[in-house]
Amino acid sequence: MTTGTSSLGLPMTVPAEGLPGRVRIYEVGARDGLQNEKAVVPVEVKAEFIRRLAATGLGTIEATSFVHPKWVPQLADAEQLYPEVADLPVELPVLVPNERGLDRALALGARRVAVFASATESFAKANLNRTVDEALAMFEPVVARAKAQQVGVRGYLSMCFGDPWEGPVPVPQVVKVCRALLDMGCDELSLGDTIGVATPGHVQALLTALREAGVPVSVIGVHFHDTYGQALSNTLTALQQGVTTVDSSAGGLGGCPYAKSATGNLATEDLVWMLQGLGIDTGVDLGRLVATSVWMAAHLGRPSPSRTVRALSHQEQ
Amino acid sequence: MTTGTSSLGLPMTVPAEGLPGRVRIYEVGARDGLQNEKAVVPVEVKAEFIRRLAATGLGTIEATSFVHPKWVPQLADAEQLYPEVADLPVELPVLVPNERGLDRALALGARRVAVFASATESFAKANLNRTVDEALAMFEPVVARAKAQQVGVRGYLSMCFGDPWEGPVPVPQVVKVCRALLDMGCDELSLGDTIGVATPGHVQALLTALREAGVPVSVIGVHFHDTYGQALSNTLTALQQGVTTVDSSAGGLGGCPYAKSATGNLATEDLVWMLQGLGIDTGVDLGRLVATSVWMAAHLGRPSPSRTVRALSHQEQ
Repeated sequence: MTTGTSSLGLPMTVPAEGLPGRVRIYEVGARDGLQNEKAVVPVEVKAEFIRRLAATGLGTIEATSFVHPKWVPQLADAEQLYPEVADLPVELPVLVPNERGLDRALALGARRVAVFASATESFAKANLNRTVDEALAMFEPVVARAKAQQVGVRGYLSMCFGDPWEGPVPVPQVVKVCRALLDMGCDELSLGDTIGVATPGHVQALLTALREAGVPVSVIGVHFHDTYGQALSNTLTALQQGVTTVDSSAGGLGGCPYAKSATGNLATEDLVWMLQGLGIDTGVDLGRLVATSVWMAAHLGRPSPSRTVRALSHQEQ
Repeated sequence: MTTGTSSLGLPMTVPAEGLPGRVRIYEVGARDGLQNEKAVVPVEVKAEFIRRLAATGLGTIEATSFVHPKWVPQLADAEQLYPEVADLPVELPVLVPNERGLDRALALGARRVAVFASATESFAKANLNRTVDEALAMFEPVVARAKAQQVGVRGYLSMCFGDPWEGPVPVPQVVKVCRALLDMGCDELSLGDTIGVATPGHVQALLTALREAGVPVSVIGVHFHDTYGQALSNTLTALQQGVTTVDSSAGGLGGCPYAKSATGNLATEDLVWMLQGLGIDTGVDLGRLVATSVWMAAHLGRPSPSRTVRALSHQEQ
């Protein structure tokens, strides 16, 4: 049989009931997607990647991290990269692990920063060598100083559903850390399923508990990993609960260091395919985005794990 | 960082509201999954695959197809295979394209058969060399004769959402063919998104239209492909609409011949991961199922495309 000739570049648009009209995609490919790449990607390639992402219509692109170069060598070029892209007409948040990182980001004129907390003691210890409370105490002056300069602050919260050491994470424990991040001044949260184990009932339960704790859904972003193939159904559940900010990574770049499979972050293309079919506005040109991911995949020397990228670019698995 | 030591063999069980308590998984790996494999899988391997699938707790396993060997050489061993597995305590439906196929299936004692219709003229022409109505006319005596012998009949309907030649498929057109299949005596339907383009609003619209046309949800099965990564969110939508039969393929075997990517059928493991997390009974032992898919992948010489299989078996991509 031959391949069909009609264009299937977009799904049929049929809105489902009770979903938002617009979703803000928070693109993490340039930071979260690249940070675990062993071979250092040249700074000019990173800058071009971000420029191409911006040209697809993505409005929020996390650019880099001002973490100590010793911990994330891939992002040691943050000082070189940020000025290359700072003039793009998009939100360009950067990760800052501590006050030193904030200083570096502010010196370059960053207008949005993000801190990276943990919902579990085990991951706080492994990732930050601190207790959950000690990590929050470390972030307090970071958030306060950023706010004093009208710099927006996102609070990432990892291990919101399962933790590789502790197993399932109790919902009240996650709510407590969310409240602490908001109380210290974070403008928005990103609820991370860092190891990709969540399923829709768990997502619904956490979002319900946050609503009951007085957290407005407008400050909540969701950050699902596709390690077990669950990211998009969890995202759909979050949209049904009123969430309108979704983290994803162009081409599905990046992943969880605890799962050997490369399937980590939800691919922005797979997300956009679903949102376009639902008639939900994202502002993103899917064809340009696929082309960008194919271009980046060529630089990294392996195909994108995104199924939509593969289908639309006819990449072999 | 080191990998965690606690067991994450199962997601945390948190039921979502409005979902069924039990889902019948209709396993298609042995037929739909294998039929496009170029290298012929030995009949004893197929029989062992089906035995292992049955041992995981799967209750419905489509075994083979009594199509003419010229069209699907991989399944030319149907006469040898079926008797090898016929005594398993599971439902073992077989595909029958026409009366000749039905004769062959009945001669071996098959108690459940399936016919394969198309919602679109283009695919009916390409796959069956007939119009939609001509194909239905061909199935009429097949269904009538099966029913006369109390043999159950499933009606597959392909291209229910998008068609590679025609683009988006109008919902009324799909409803019409569904009604025709039920009116001629089919006990159940399988709504196929053969090229994987559907999104949740489209799924909701088709299921709503079928309900309004008087089709009971209890006879509807859904058959989603993961070509664009959408299968599980579409499945979740179908469950929210009351569907309780879901087609899937162990290890994600098989795929759509129109997409070059190997990511075709929804992987049974990815489905079971979601259903277990939702507290929905499937009767399936996920560990045994993953082991079965890893075993089959070794026979086929390439890793399973299922993300859950990869994560739980630590297969590299």
